[in-house]
Amino acid sequence: MRLKVLWPGKTKSPEIRGLQDFYASRIATLADLEIVETREARGIDEKYPEKIKELEARGLEKHLEGVYSICLLDRGRELTSDEFAKLIRGRAENTGRPPVFVIGGFLGLADRIVEKADMRLALSRMTFSHEFCRIVLLEQVYRALNIIRGRHYAK
Amino acid sequence: MRLKVLWPGKTKSPEIRGLQDFYASRIATLADLEIVETREARGIDEKYPEKIKELEARGLEKHLEGVYSICLLDRGRELTSDEFAKLIRGRAENTGRPPVFVIGGFLGLADRIVEKADMRLALSRMTFSHEFCRIVLLEQVYRALNIIRGRHYAK
Repeated sequence: MRLKVLWPGKTKSPEIRGLQDFYASRIATLADLEIVETREARGIDEKYPEKIKELEARGLEKHLEGVYSICLLDRGRELTSDEFAKLIRGRAENTGRPPVFVIGGFLGLADRIVEKADMRLALSRMTFSHEFCRIVLLEQVYRALNIIRGRHYAK
Repeated sequence: MRLKVLWPGKTKSPEIRGLQDFYASRIATLADLEIVETREARGIDEKYPEKIKELEARGLEKHLEGVYSICLLDRGRELTSDEFAKLIRGRAENTGRPPVFVIGGFLGLADRIVEKADMRLALSRMTFSHEFCRIVLLEQVYRALNIIRGRHYAK
């Protein structure tokens, strides 16, 4: 099973990075996971949020041709872990467009990335920081792969 | 502002522990946070889940007299981060019963702890591992304290 995850820029928090690497290595035992850290907008004044999101959108778009894109947003649709596992299994069985998860940068995603998304997914009603969102997604992907394989995974 | 968090046993995952310590130290700059790692059931066969939950319930109960207990459950009520901040601010202003967050062990909470809870809170519709739940709660507490103080905190 192939899974791709996109987000702009490397994870800066060493503590989040530690957990990210941990889940990525666990996922790698169950699926073919590719994390792509796309171009991050740097040196642009935060007074120009659209400029920042536009620049990051261009980096993300390079990986969004012909895929099934799942954008993570706090205003997206919520799923249970079982429903999330079904989504992943369903996409893996569909030989057409492989699933690609997209997480925005510190200012979020450009509107056009969100509008073109095949699915808008919320991990919670609560807002997570963009870096924290990365590990929540990976934890759930790891859980989903365990559910798909019928394995027990800690509550 | 005083906040107390209870869960049975020390956090075993070093990666989760790293992030837990990070958020705990950030929260400590804004509030008086006490994390109590209560007695964990050990050496009991998992065939006896009620026995495990009962033993852990006794450790948690020692800290639940006269407090406003908020139990974390995936079948609880969901709040946005703003609503969660309002909950914390509201409880802090109420001089009566201080808020205490309760997270279950690897098998969850005993029914009677859940039934006696003043509030049942879900961090997500998704299920998180009991250790992962600890850092999601701390991240949201840190966010809530920033919201209460009118500070900007990364999306």
